[in-house]
Amino acid sequence: MRLTKVMQETHSTLDDALQVVLVRTTHPGNIGAAARAMKTMGLHKLTLVEPNGFPSAEATSRASGADDVLAAANVCETLDQALSEATLVMGTSARLRSIPMPQLNPRQAIARAQQELTGGGRVALLFGQERSGLTNDEIGRCHALINIPSNPDYSSLNLGAAVQVICYEWAMCGGGKARPAEPKSEQDEIPATADMMEGFYQHLEQTLLAIEFLDPKQPVALMQRLRRLYGRARPTKSEIDILRGILAKTLKGSSNGQR
Amino acid sequence: MRLTKVMQETHSTLDDALQVVLVRTTHPGNIGAAARAMKTMGLHKLTLVEPNGFPSAEATSRASGADDVLAAANVCETLDQALSEATLVMGTSARLRSIPMPQLNPRQAIARAQQELTGGGRVALLFGQERSGLTNDEIGRCHALINIPSNPDYSSLNLGAAVQVICYEWAMCGGGKARPAEPKSEQDEIPATADMMEGFYQHLEQTLLAIEFLDPKQPVALMQRLRRLYGRARPTKSEIDILRGILAKTLKGSSNGQR
Repeated sequence: MRLTKVMQETHSTLDDALQVVLVRTTHPGNIGAAARAMKTMGLHKLTLVEPNGFPSAEATSRASGADDVLAAANVCETLDQALSEATLVMGTSARLRSIPMPQLNPRQAIARAQQELTGGGRVALLFGQERSGLTNDEIGRCHALINIPSNPDYSSLNLGAAVQVICYEWAMCGGGKARPAEPKSEQDEIPATADMMEGFYQHLEQTLLAIEFLDPKQPVALMQRLRRLYGRARPTKSEIDILRGILAKTLKGSSNGQR
Repeated sequence: MRLTKVMQETHSTLDDALQVVLVRTTHPGNIGAAARAMKTMGLHKLTLVEPNGFPSAEATSRASGADDVLAAANVCETLDQALSEATLVMGTSARLRSIPMPQLNPRQAIARAQQELTGGGRVALLFGQERSGLTNDEIGRCHALINIPSNPDYSSLNLGAAVQVICYEWAMCGGGKARPAEPKSEQDEIPATADMMEGFYQHLEQTLLAIEFLDPKQPVALMQRLRRLYGRARPTKSEIDILRGILAKTLKGSSNGQR
């Protein structure tokens, strides 16, 4: 029995480790359209963060046969919950942002995702609210942004259409048919999960406050910059252990110093 | 004045000669979604053959700002009228057909379209009725079929989503006015030079020795790991300033502590 279980896991496809995350979606119909778009391209892991009205008849109607994707959707109260297992997070953005973060087109982004998945990681693709897109805080959780190329005078893709384009690139790359992840042998090589990264960021903020580097009244902007920097580095689990070791030593020195 | 006019025409883009043709569309909302999909990707020539209910409020609502594309749509009674000027006709098909005709994926089809357009031709992309697709007679008008790769168990793309995917490939090929993503050139975004990185690493090593995190006898292995981590992040100049600010504060706290 045990053997059977292991074999099943070994045969699971990459698309089990790729989730589409819709953040604060306003119109239930768009959730249905996204589910349909995913299923046509062989994807099925849908996560909804604070959806406005779900489940709903409109979502089911627009899903048009992809109601299994809706029924299995993971509904979360916070983005952190949604991303807890993700090792690579990429967010879609209608416009180029002047922030130091890789900005990929959908084809490049899917190539990057496949690389991550074949390495044993888990990927989350984020889609923000229809009108306003992802907030700066949500972008702070991303390792890269995805820009769908568009008409500079009219770049407002429908949410379902944006999901369709990204998932189409997945299918074009052979998506679900690609090889399953091979388990990594070395502890070192496993990328840190979003949970670990959050633990590190909290530890970092606490330390920077203790050494009086951060202004307690305005910690946000600087922490966002540091999140982007470390997000780009994509630390492994053991690197996070090293960084937290440094923080622990720094904190200890700081309290010894009785400042 | 005449010369100016001619010059403008000469400078018109290829997308003036690329038309999207929706044949016997059943749901007016899908016509609106198609118009929106086209406009986001820089296309605007829409032809409707025997639409069911057009114009309609639902089409305008789903077009969401692309109502100019709807207003300029060419409504025809027959497919022959719609195709009268086309030199290359390609029809979308959800499934591969066993007919002797080139069957291209969207990327190949758009490459073929661009070749035709740069040679002075005019291209029509056909999309059949939602439920039944293109009839054999309509396929008979085509020079090639376009297959959007999809889940063999669930290949039913929404009409607007299918239009979005094809038009996306147009934009990806540099189609209309869409441009590839280029990073901004702000001060923030300038990557740190190797000199700056070396200065940072020396500062880091000095600090880690001061807080007794690094073993003075064997600092090399850990420093190499940290170099790899920060090297992957490719910090900007201003990010290096932030990191060195943190190190300076840490060093100061450490010497205050008189350890």
